[in-house]
Amino acid sequence: MADTIKLALDDVFELAKTALTGQGFSEEQASAIARTISRAERDGCESHGLFRVPFYVKATKHPATNATARPVLSELATSVVRVDAGCGFCPLALETGLPVLADKARSNGIAALAINNAYNIAALWPEVEALAEQGLVSLAFTAANAFVAPAGGIKPIYGTNPMAFGWPRSGKPPMVFDQASSASARGEIQLHLRDGKPLPEGWAIDADGNPTTDPEAALAGAQLTYGGYKGAAIALMVELLAGALIGDLFSYQSSERDSVKSGAPFGGEFIIAINPETCASAGSSEGRVNTNPLAHAEELFGAVLSQDGTRLPGERRIKARERTAVDGITIPASLHQQITEFAG
Amino acid sequence: MADTIKLALDDVFELAKTALTGQGFSEEQASAIARTISRAERDGCESHGLFRVPFYVKATKHPATNATARPVLSELATSVVRVDAGCGFCPLALETGLPVLADKARSNGIAALAINNAYNIAALWPEVEALAEQGLVSLAFTAANAFVAPAGGIKPIYGTNPMAFGWPRSGKPPMVFDQASSASARGEIQLHLRDGKPLPEGWAIDADGNPTTDPEAALAGAQLTYGGYKGAAIALMVELLAGALIGDLFSYQSSERDSVKSGAPFGGEFIIAINPETCASAGSSEGRVNTNPLAHAEELFGAVLSQDGTRLPGERRIKARERTAVDGITIPASLHQQITEFAG
Repeated sequence: MADTIKLALDDVFELAKTALTGQGFSEEQASAIARTISRAERDGCESHGLFRVPFYVKATKHPATNATARPVLSELATSVVRVDAGCGFCPLALETGLPVLADKARSNGIAALAINNAYNIAALWPEVEALAEQGLVSLAFTAANAFVAPAGGIKPIYGTNPMAFGWPRSGKPPMVFDQASSASARGEIQLHLRDGKPLPEGWAIDADGNPTTDPEAALAGAQLTYGGYKGAAIALMVELLAGALIGDLFSYQSSERDSVKSGAPFGGEFIIAINPETCASAGSSEGRVNTNPLAHAEELFGAVLSQDGTRLPGERRIKARERTAVDGITIPASLHQQITEFAG
Repeated sequence: MADTIKLALDDVFELAKTALTGQGFSEEQASAIARTISRAERDGCESHGLFRVPFYVKATKHPATNATARPVLSELATSVVRVDAGCGFCPLALETGLPVLADKARSNGIAALAINNAYNIAALWPEVEALAEQGLVSLAFTAANAFVAPAGGIKPIYGTNPMAFGWPRSGKPPMVFDQASSASARGEIQLHLRDGKPLPEGWAIDADGNPTTDPEAALAGAQLTYGGYKGAAIALMVELLAGALIGDLFSYQSSERDSVKSGAPFGGEFIIAINPETCASAGSSEGRVNTNPLAHAEELFGAVLSQDGTRLPGERRIKARERTAVDGITIPASLHQQITEFAG
């Protein structure tokens, strides 16, 4: 058997969806998840692509998990909408909530979406990118499981706690970043473990609090935040926004809840969407500013890119998108076999 | 003459205000600035205390500066309010806009305040702390002047671009952080220069792009972001939120505008305020969560502080507050003399 399998991008969706429906996921839940996985493979984000299918399946081992849940939308205030994912998975909750969030942001200038009771196994950039494709600026936050030590401490308490940001661009893919407040994503350490590679310095400490480059010791110890105490402040903010603010779990509570050791983070996601047409309409009275916010942003992007060695966040994803459209993707044969077996 | 002067905290406000009115600031502008400066001295933030008075005065050298400006408030959308600072200073614009922002956040769940055409010489934590004292969660962003190199580049383009976050606590001062997306605040480098101390590694590069610990070379070169490309992504986001989104200047445009080399950043500030009572009202349907968001947050704070060596962001400020209430503050005699001379 070959070590790897090549797939056309169009085949990723069906492969993921069939695997999930074969494991008891509803058509709607499986389709939403498969769309997210396809986007990740399209953009070269291997750690959020088909690699994640077994994580979704494993999450169903928890007795509370509902792989056929129908998300329920409710309005909490003029500018806040909430989706109860019903112990299902985040992608379908997002597909339910994002259109309402976008409408509210367009009407009111700014709005928020709180997603509760969801397994958050995916990256955050797809949702901020989707909002940016509709002309909206957005920020997204979600907690995870207890993986990351607080500044000065050695025991994991925070999740990898990503914050994502999306900015629309005319005639181009949006400018998007999605960065863990840890020095690395959890999935990156899992990939290093799988591939038998040592970790870069500064990513993790072992269970005794000593720096380590061994992926296994890192997974048993604690990840570190990026930028020391400043990254830790971001991690804390994400816990508060995606947890206490919206009445949902902190990362360490998600870990405590995970009685079946599925490793799937469970809890909330918080998204803020802003309408740049509203906000820029007044502008500077000095007349020094381009009051078209998107055109103005391009001036900044141009200034950044005029320096050698720079690039905008997300550029690698957009380049991967061009490549995978032509070449398709490659996954380990063992993963392909596992996913195929899920389909039954 | 002694090298330093001791002042009671109560004297800071009058000293700052009299200096500013002596230099042509209106009673309202001077009072708002003096309140901000007093809060900084109270909290041990020397670099935003009386040290800043000469920066405010210097900003009036620009022909467009209006030290007697009356901020003008307007509603841009249901959940967005804007204050045109009229080429005056940010503290009075904030005092004008924050009450309306707070009302909108309480009514609509989330709201935003855009401040335009303001000199932003102060820190951001006073505004997020003020919102938190009213029970609101908030985020604040402002750009500066071109001080910081983009990831991979060597020429300054971003400001030090702080992001601040405030979280209310029952019966305690709010949990607040206010952190530059650069490795250090600009003011910290200025203090190192004044005191003849070398900089820590990783703060800056010289004009040729080489790492430097010399404050003067750093001020002539470029500051670095914290956490490498991740801090740079935050810096870029701050430019977009406090600049293009609200129709105001980027950091490099503020530098270009500064024809008199006053060094005072000019442009926008963007603040988001959120009502936790709205957002947490639905909560987790699993009943695993304390649906009182502030009480829930205390569980997280307790878990963080249960580890040796940890502290919450802003703790140093709160401790300084207890100390300065009793001991007052100490400033260099030369600074005291300069400020006294401003009063005329």
